Amino acid sequence: MTIRQLGADLRSGRISCVDLIEQSLVRAREHGDLRAFITVTDEEARAEAAERDRELRQGLDRGPLHGIPIALKDLFYTNGIRTTGGSLLYKDFVPDYDADVVARLREAGAISIGKLNLHELAFGITSRNPHFGTVLNPVDKTRLAGGSSGGSGAAIAAGIVPMALGTDTGGSIRIPASYCGIVGLKPSYGLVSRRGVLPLGFTLDHVGPMGTSVEYCALAMNAMADVQQEYNLPPLADFKGIRIGLPRNFFFDNVDESVANAVKNAIGRMQTAGAQVSEVLVPDFAELNTVSHMILLAEFASLHPGARDRSRFGNDVWALLEQGRMVAAHEYINAQRLRQLFREEMRGVWKNIDVLATPTTPIVAPPAEAKTIRIHGQEEGVRPASTRLVRAVNCTGEPALSMPCGKTPEGLPVGLQLIGPIRSDARLLQIAKSLESLLEHPN
Amino acid sequence: MTIRQLGADLRSGRISCVDLIEQSLVRAREHGDLRAFITVTDEEARAEAAERDRELRQGLDRGPLHGIPIALKDLFYTNGIRTTGGSLLYKDFVPDYDADVVARLREAGAISIGKLNLHELAFGITSRNPHFGTVLNPVDKTRLAGGSSGGSGAAIAAGIVPMALGTDTGGSIRIPASYCGIVGLKPSYGLVSRRGVLPLGFTLDHVGPMGTSVEYCALAMNAMADVQQEYNLPPLADFKGIRIGLPRNFFFDNVDESVANAVKNAIGRMQTAGAQVSEVLVPDFAELNTVSHMILLAEFASLHPGARDRSRFGNDVWALLEQGRMVAAHEYINAQRLRQLFREEMRGVWKNIDVLATPTTPIVAPPAEAKTIRIHGQEEGVRPASTRLVRAVNCTGEPALSMPCGKTPEGLPVGLQLIGPIRSDARLLQIAKSLESLLEHPN
Repeated sequence: MTIRQLGADLRSGRISCVDLIEQSLVRAREHGDLRAFITVTDEEARAEAAERDRELRQGLDRGPLHGIPIALKDLFYTNGIRTTGGSLLYKDFVPDYDADVVARLREAGAISIGKLNLHELAFGITSRNPHFGTVLNPVDKTRLAGGSSGGSGAAIAAGIVPMALGTDTGGSIRIPASYCGIVGLKPSYGLVSRRGVLPLGFTLDHVGPMGTSVEYCALAMNAMADVQQEYNLPPLADFKGIRIGLPRNFFFDNVDESVANAVKNAIGRMQTAGAQVSEVLVPDFAELNTVSHMILLAEFASLHPGARDRSRFGNDVWALLEQGRMVAAHEYINAQRLRQLFREEMRGVWKNIDVLATPTTPIVAPPAEAKTIRIHGQEEGVRPASTRLVRAVNCTGEPALSMPCGKTPEGLPVGLQLIGPIRSDARLLQIAKSLESLLEHPN
Repeated sequence: MTIRQLGADLRSGRISCVDLIEQSLVRAREHGDLRAFITVTDEEARAEAAERDRELRQGLDRGPLHGIPIALKDLFYTNGIRTTGGSLLYKDFVPDYDADVVARLREAGAISIGKLNLHELAFGITSRNPHFGTVLNPVDKTRLAGGSSGGSGAAIAAGIVPMALGTDTGGSIRIPASYCGIVGLKPSYGLVSRRGVLPLGFTLDHVGPMGTSVEYCALAMNAMADVQQEYNLPPLADFKGIRIGLPRNFFFDNVDESVANAVKNAIGRMQTAGAQVSEVLVPDFAELNTVSHMILLAEFASLHPGARDRSRFGNDVWALLEQGRMVAAHEYINAQRLRQLFREEMRGVWKNIDVLATPTTPIVAPPAEAKTIRIHGQEEGVRPASTRLVRAVNCTGEPALSMPCGKTPEGLPVGLQLIGPIRSDARLLQIAKSLESLLEHPN
């Protein structure tokens, strides 16, 4: 159901907020095997729904998100509700305030039904959480939901909630969006408050919305963004005047054929609908990925200066912490300087295009236990493969969105990534919404 | 001679710019034993002076700095003139443009007679330069001029030029100003362009003026600052309404008695003239000094990633480079976070005062060969002693100025440091100018 239909039903009294929440809670229970949730807050959600119903009856309407069930990656502080970060370090941590974005979404009427599973401390993309279980993919439960916002992706794809909050430090919103076949936006750096969100990498962290459709993400941005403007623009009548950049280098190197085909097909659909598609050269993102990883390792290590007990960490995260401790300050500083050069180089990319269209991930959701995958016969680790097309923009700060653009022959969703210039978030969402509606109709 | 008298003489034709430059060049030669200069640019200065004379005759008046001889710490790029940084690394480096501030001062009519000696790469405060000699103090040639802007301090104190440019990363303007008995301003962080200045520590470096009087520094700021405003305000009629903070902690701990006496005497003079003096607690600057040093070490190391040949460095600077390479990224990041807390804490200091008055250095100029000095019988290294009262504000960014406030019984100048809130540079200079005129008259 679209949010418009939901909203109409709520306001006509055909359903109530309490009904909606109850349905979400039932589905959350039914899909317990996905391990999408760490904490389900039944009581709080029911009470909030009853209050939202009361308000609607009294004519107090908070807008399109009024009564909509959502869920929160367990990295967001929730007042009185534990916030684990998917880690033993915080397993009993109960914040005494809501993260800014949580408070804003509640203010806009959205109702959280709980805290979502994630990769431990958000540092990883498999969401194979050693403490809270592996998040499975609702599309195919033998596969990963991706991460680190894996619970968010799974809960949306399973129809538990139509919208959730994620964070993206090196692709953690876009990767699970791609693998689960939903929409996820990493907004422009700094556009959305991070107050009350457990940090991973200070200069790379982004908070963003994930949803069944672009519209949910756009409405979430209306509530969440520090810069108030209309993010939920009407879809374009056609694609005339829209300049789409098709990367000539990097983004289609070593990409699974069915993924590349689905992405190029979607770009072709936009071209047919009037878009001007041109090939563009992008900066050396392979190098930027290395820079990004070094910065992240060091910033992560700075958050855990006293950690000595490795039994409190999963093996992968402990190894990253040890690596992070070995980064020298002068390397970190020079990585930040190099990053500045990439930022400047990126400005040139936008001279003749409005948006870059790329695959989000070179592969579809990998098998739940896989350590490596094969692309064109070449073996690659699941983490480097999953992150390589997404993490560069965490360094440069542009808004980037993943949306489903088709399926492989086996029926697994393919993610298309749209990247726009800094602070073009509203325009990016509008183009994505227009593509979404184009793709709803057959070729 | 004050700049006003000089200006009147220039404009009445009693002297010419060429005369002034010739006098400066003669004095520079006479004082060659101070090793204040690395390069004297006789020819260029004479040509420029002739041009400035021509302009004055034609009625083209560039303002108060027109025809004034200055000199530049050899860290500032000068078009076509070598810029050594006091180091073998740059001994043959000839920039092809002027640093922003150099261009602005030339535009304002000032004429550089050469490039000034400094501590190697500006990383140290003795100006015992292994490649270009030790800069000696004109007040007592058995003593250090201080550093790293030692040549600037010596050239001004010796009467070679009335004004010079320095840089201050951990006190490098204020320390030689204190030891040589002149005025030196470290402006608010970011207020003066650093383009074309060899860096030492990206987040700590400041460019600033040094001069025989506050007025020279204020006029230099009029020409140099990125934020254009009047920095050369008239002196206050009296000190009524001026709130002076006398630090209760840190700044008077372990300070030589004759230094403390001279500083307190000057504060007493302002109080007698109407100022309201109150004791204030300052943040834990001893800790901030440690933070500042760690940040500097790491940022310095980041500038020389490939340096392997220690014969290209003095022993002290090489040791600092090796220390800098050992700083871990997570330590650097947390030092920067801690620094933020200090910045916020400093805001509280300004609630009830306009300016902090402290000693600049706990001692007067140390003997030229000294590695340590004694204060109240306690031995302390020359570097830690010289920097401990000045380097904190390089971390927090406030403007700070050193000015002579008296002499010890042996006749060595004592520096008083005035620190003001961020971007209060004009006000700070005005208060300093008023104190200067107060001190010109006997008690």
